[in-house]
Amino acid sequence: MRVARHGPPGRERPIAAGDDGIWRDISSVTHDITGAWLDGGPAHLRAALPGLPAVRGIERFGPPVARIGKIVCVGLNYRDHAAETGADIPAEPIVFLKTPDTVVGPDDDVLIPRRSVKTDWEVELAVVIGAQARYLDSPQQARAHIAGYAISNDVSEREFQLERGGQWDKGKNCETFNPLGPWLLTADDVPDPQALGLRLWVNGKQRQDGSTKNMIFDVDFVVWYLSQFMVLRPGDVINTGTPHGVALGLPRTPYLRPGDVVEVEIDGLGRQRQQFRAA
Amino acid sequence: MRVARHGPPGRERPIAAGDDGIWRDISSVTHDITGAWLDGGPAHLRAALPGLPAVRGIERFGPPVARIGKIVCVGLNYRDHAAETGADIPAEPIVFLKTPDTVVGPDDDVLIPRRSVKTDWEVELAVVIGAQARYLDSPQQARAHIAGYAISNDVSEREFQLERGGQWDKGKNCETFNPLGPWLLTADDVPDPQALGLRLWVNGKQRQDGSTKNMIFDVDFVVWYLSQFMVLRPGDVINTGTPHGVALGLPRTPYLRPGDVVEVEIDGLGRQRQQFRAA
Repeated sequence: MRVARHGPPGRERPIAAGDDGIWRDISSVTHDITGAWLDGGPAHLRAALPGLPAVRGIERFGPPVARIGKIVCVGLNYRDHAAETGADIPAEPIVFLKTPDTVVGPDDDVLIPRRSVKTDWEVELAVVIGAQARYLDSPQQARAHIAGYAISNDVSEREFQLERGGQWDKGKNCETFNPLGPWLLTADDVPDPQALGLRLWVNGKQRQDGSTKNMIFDVDFVVWYLSQFMVLRPGDVINTGTPHGVALGLPRTPYLRPGDVVEVEIDGLGRQRQQFRAA
Repeated sequence: MRVARHGPPGRERPIAAGDDGIWRDISSVTHDITGAWLDGGPAHLRAALPGLPAVRGIERFGPPVARIGKIVCVGLNYRDHAAETGADIPAEPIVFLKTPDTVVGPDDDVLIPRRSVKTDWEVELAVVIGAQARYLDSPQQARAHIAGYAISNDVSEREFQLERGGQWDKGKNCETFNPLGPWLLTADDVPDPQALGLRLWVNGKQRQDGSTKNMIFDVDFVVWYLSQFMVLRPGDVINTGTPHGVALGLPRTPYLRPGDVVEVEIDGLGRQRQQFRAA
């Protein structure tokens, strides 16, 4: 089942699509797609869904989750990306944060920060938490805490991130820097999150073409690992890292400039399209 | 004017105290102390406050702000603290993040994470944003965007922060790691935020005794600086760094253990008292 939010920014309405592929208005079931609803709500929705009214014409997808609590990001989680950035393979996950107010819809404009010269792209599998995870005993327990999966573009300003004082967060939290969606695919429809192709194009030219099978630390490990350091709550999002092919690792490839168009795709999770413009 | 929230966790009610020092219930004016209310609300409250009902007996202060959007932290922002940790004086602010779900009341228990051996304290001046700040032209514009000030204990696990993969966030976001309050003192009552004494005691022994006059980057500079990299919104919190005297810089001083009591104080902003216990 896919769940999403459509409508103008800040006034999105919840929708879902089951096996028949038809988007239906679920606002009679929940006022929004929130962490509280994701903790148990989707399982109850499935049976009721075919009886709900179909939605005609989706003009804009918003982010598929409202009121995200936190976005936890794993850095350098693909061997080929670690290599392209000149970094060692990490011994354990590198963790940084994005703030939820960086999130925009999958096709919304993304703003290149003022004085930015190194705005970069990163296709990532986003894991959405559905049940609280705190000190999990093993990675095998992780799957029961995952509501589903979505596409994240972990937009990054590399000068801010790497050359301006030492902690990555400075280049990861500019406004609009986290397009999310178009939908959340519930975990029961993703039997193997480590077998998903990830792709990204800039102005029609493909730059990233990876697979989640090449993650250094897989989804279950990451959820278990993070739960040792912080409490993961329903509605939290984990950006699980990007494969090879970002501008940082391609010396002859320009960083993003106003007017550029980035398209992002993951198997089963849909496609994003962002126009970049000046802040 | 002081604004605060009192009552059981998750069910706090808003209160305020003006020149007469009497805490009054302001729930007829606002249902809670939120970013939306801080953007203009306190100025309107001041005249009405003396007519509101006094509160008898405050059993527990909660964090003075509800639904915090983000907590942005400045690292190594006091010369003596940079020196004690063996770090160079930063050329520009070091920025990292705490997630809002780490926030607890000023006197709530703090949990020492499982497998932690280096849980440390940090008294900090917290700046609460009252009006959106985005690409401010100069530090002189910052003051108009500040709602007020509070005490933050930026609790930190040093092994997680510094020895487990390179980004500090991993040691800064354990549950309960950000006691905040007891109150927010509105900016109009703090003529000079760079003239505040900060103090911290562990089991009655004073460990920190600093002044905000020794910040490397002052409050106005920090607000202006951050606004170049991210949008600061009403209800966001900035932890502005800690002075000398943390366990990390005191080789013969033990890190925190279950049963330890930490007390934290800043001139005009009240006092916190936390019991530390095992997670």
